[in-house]
Amino acid sequence: MATGDLAKAPTPLVEDGGEGTRPDGEIRLTPDAPDEPGPDPVRLAQALQRLSEIGGDGRASVSRLAFTPEEREAHRVVGAWMAEAGLTVRVDAFGNTIGERPGARADLPFLAFGSHLDSVPNGGRFDGIVGVVGALEIVRLLEEGGVTTAHPLRMVAFANEEGARFGEACLGSKAVTGMLSPRDAERLVDADGTTLAAAMAALGIDPRQIEEARWPDGSVAAFLELHIEQARLLEARGLQVGIVDAVAGNTRLRVLVHGRADHSGGTPMESRKDALAGAAEIVLGIEALANEPNRRTTVATVGRFSVSPNSITTIPGSVELAVDVRDIDSDRQRDTAWRVVELCEQVCARRGLDLEHVVVSDTSPSVLPLWLRRITKDGCVELGLTHRVMSSGAGHDAQILARRMPAAMLFVPSHNGASHVPEEWTGVDDIVSGVRALYASLLRLDRFLSEEVA
Amino acid sequence: MATGDLAKAPTPLVEDGGEGTRPDGEIRLTPDAPDEPGPDPVRLAQALQRLSEIGGDGRASVSRLAFTPEEREAHRVVGAWMAEAGLTVRVDAFGNTIGERPGARADLPFLAFGSHLDSVPNGGRFDGIVGVVGALEIVRLLEEGGVTTAHPLRMVAFANEEGARFGEACLGSKAVTGMLSPRDAERLVDADGTTLAAAMAALGIDPRQIEEARWPDGSVAAFLELHIEQARLLEARGLQVGIVDAVAGNTRLRVLVHGRADHSGGTPMESRKDALAGAAEIVLGIEALANEPNRRTTVATVGRFSVSPNSITTIPGSVELAVDVRDIDSDRQRDTAWRVVELCEQVCARRGLDLEHVVVSDTSPSVLPLWLRRITKDGCVELGLTHRVMSSGAGHDAQILARRMPAAMLFVPSHNGASHVPEEWTGVDDIVSGVRALYASLLRLDRFLSEEVA
Repeated sequence: MATGDLAKAPTPLVEDGGEGTRPDGEIRLTPDAPDEPGPDPVRLAQALQRLSEIGGDGRASVSRLAFTPEEREAHRVVGAWMAEAGLTVRVDAFGNTIGERPGARADLPFLAFGSHLDSVPNGGRFDGIVGVVGALEIVRLLEEGGVTTAHPLRMVAFANEEGARFGEACLGSKAVTGMLSPRDAERLVDADGTTLAAAMAALGIDPRQIEEARWPDGSVAAFLELHIEQARLLEARGLQVGIVDAVAGNTRLRVLVHGRADHSGGTPMESRKDALAGAAEIVLGIEALANEPNRRTTVATVGRFSVSPNSITTIPGSVELAVDVRDIDSDRQRDTAWRVVELCEQVCARRGLDLEHVVVSDTSPSVLPLWLRRITKDGCVELGLTHRVMSSGAGHDAQILARRMPAAMLFVPSHNGASHVPEEWTGVDDIVSGVRALYASLLRLDRFLSEEVA
Repeated sequence: MATGDLAKAPTPLVEDGGEGTRPDGEIRLTPDAPDEPGPDPVRLAQALQRLSEIGGDGRASVSRLAFTPEEREAHRVVGAWMAEAGLTVRVDAFGNTIGERPGARADLPFLAFGSHLDSVPNGGRFDGIVGVVGALEIVRLLEEGGVTTAHPLRMVAFANEEGARFGEACLGSKAVTGMLSPRDAERLVDADGTTLAAAMAALGIDPRQIEEARWPDGSVAAFLELHIEQARLLEARGLQVGIVDAVAGNTRLRVLVHGRADHSGGTPMESRKDALAGAAEIVLGIEALANEPNRRTTVATVGRFSVSPNSITTIPGSVELAVDVRDIDSDRQRDTAWRVVELCEQVCARRGLDLEHVVVSDTSPSVLPLWLRRITKDGCVELGLTHRVMSSGAGHDAQILARRMPAAMLFVPSHNGASHVPEEWTGVDDIVSGVRALYASLLRLDRFLSEEVA
């Protein structure tokens, strides 16, 4: 692979040797050679680099939205790597790329691991990707070490984890757990009015077959996911690995505020129906709501906010906004979402504005099982990796899989907590630590579960 | 001209005979034939219809921004009509289209009249255009009636009256009054980063020659402008004509609020730097400021508001907003703008956000001269037109010309006060009344000023 493609600004993912983490955002392509068998930082960095070029802007920004040619290209590239690493590869009925490796025992179900390949618009190079290249690295280590697990293994690169395009997140994992139907594919629409079904069909994936992607009950014994933290806790405490105990639930609302577009000069203040002023009040009300003392684990965000007609001399006639409510407490999550709707109604009634609102998606929090968390923790202890148990505010595929099977998540630090932005950054040595923890967890899990049914 | 081009929704500007005003937005193409010599409603409606097709969406929305091919096409069409009506036509160094007609006396300066041809994005069919087609109708009436005025006449279709594209309004009238330089053309930039100078050059207008457009001092004795009201007063009181005594001044600010784009799930409320929440507070603060009891004639609007990266799962990292402050009191206009800046500084300081702000344009209010207003009022009284004196919240070319010469403005009603939107609507019979008032005013002014210097 050519180096220097990202030779400006945050640039390549390895090159000069030296310390492994470069908080300036450069991922070196030739870091220190590993002293002992284990994850290869050069290989990891090269894989990260290669994927950052698909939908990348040539610097650090990546736009690889679900069911775009860029996302499909990433799946093709990773699928080819998986095949090279010895896996039997297929793309399932939803577009997830799946690679399998036989185990020593035919009577055992799969152990699955992986993450996702899509990104938000102008997102970073690590979200999801670290879990995919980490999973691939584990397969390579098994292959190189001649290790055969008792269980067959299934590596997954999920499609459409981010809800950035169609509003609803974790669609690939919902498909494999039987939580997504062809009807959902007709219901979900992107900002251009394209349905998920149409976007899939345009890429040659038949949306009517979605349910074929479902993993039969009992066919997978557990799922492990490695991911960047997307927050500041690990870095602030100087820790290498986070072991997730719970993943926040997520309710997303789309709110439309309709006022009246009038001339900014000719319309007295008292006869205005300013949709932006109403929407601004909603934004601040949501912030205040999430800051209430009894909502310590609640976060609420208005991330998308579009004003129309958006002209300097016209009072805004309408605003469309997207509200994202998260909580690890299921009841409080729904109560907060409900309070947001009440707030919108009150503001619009008082200002004489018209309101439309719709729940775009609603995912419950997931508590991950203690026994599996203990196995991952034992792996960290054995390797001498500093770690802590923590919850995840961000949603993840593991949260969806946890509804149907035991699931575990490992976090590696995010520099400055930045995520969903080009500044997203995790050093290669932190990724190596995460891959080591994941590898140890997988082998321990394989032993634990095969002894159990021996 | 083909009828029925706008045969759906708000549709053509005349057709079936019947009452002249159709508040449903249709402009009939064959209204009642006029009983006596005077403005021809059919001709007015056809001109309005034809111009609405240039940059129009085939229904009622018109996007004919300054220095676009559409705006230039409108100038070409109107220039051809002016030539047909007997005027000597030229396009001046700024792109204003000017037509002249000799007077009976060689020693007198010009009497000028007209309005503008550009629109805001998705604007209406009447703003500016009514004044242009009304001016043209007057030239036709003079020609058809064989009337020669004492003063030579100058009809003007101004370029770039709306500040919609380059942020600053009334550039065509600023050019003819010597208030626009080549340096301004380099300074003013549209949303795509195109300078006014580049936009002009791309259309074959040399921005270095702008100052050639200036009307020599004393060469024009007065300027008259007919315009739609863009507010509700005339319609609410059932009046035909508004006589403008003062035009509000206008200060425009561009404000950039920079926070930190973080993941909406992983970032606790207390460690956020949410640019949207800060900008929302600014929007509400501006609204409250303009509603203060001591600011009865102040209006302030945030019309343009853009959130970045505008993704549902990312806390907004930055917001750019445009603030439009207007007042007929010059001191209060500037005091309000200053208070807006203070407000932005306070909000950003408290929230740990970074702030940039710039005054994009600043135009003082204009008080129009009483003696000229009396002449227009006498014209209305003579014709039996119901009328009242009123101020204008919207800015106009007449306001700029008033700095250098006596200027008068006549308003016709705007249905529901809607303006800068496709719903903008003035009935043809209201336009006829306005043109009659303008015609009478012009002839009275010609007599008054020629007797004065006889």
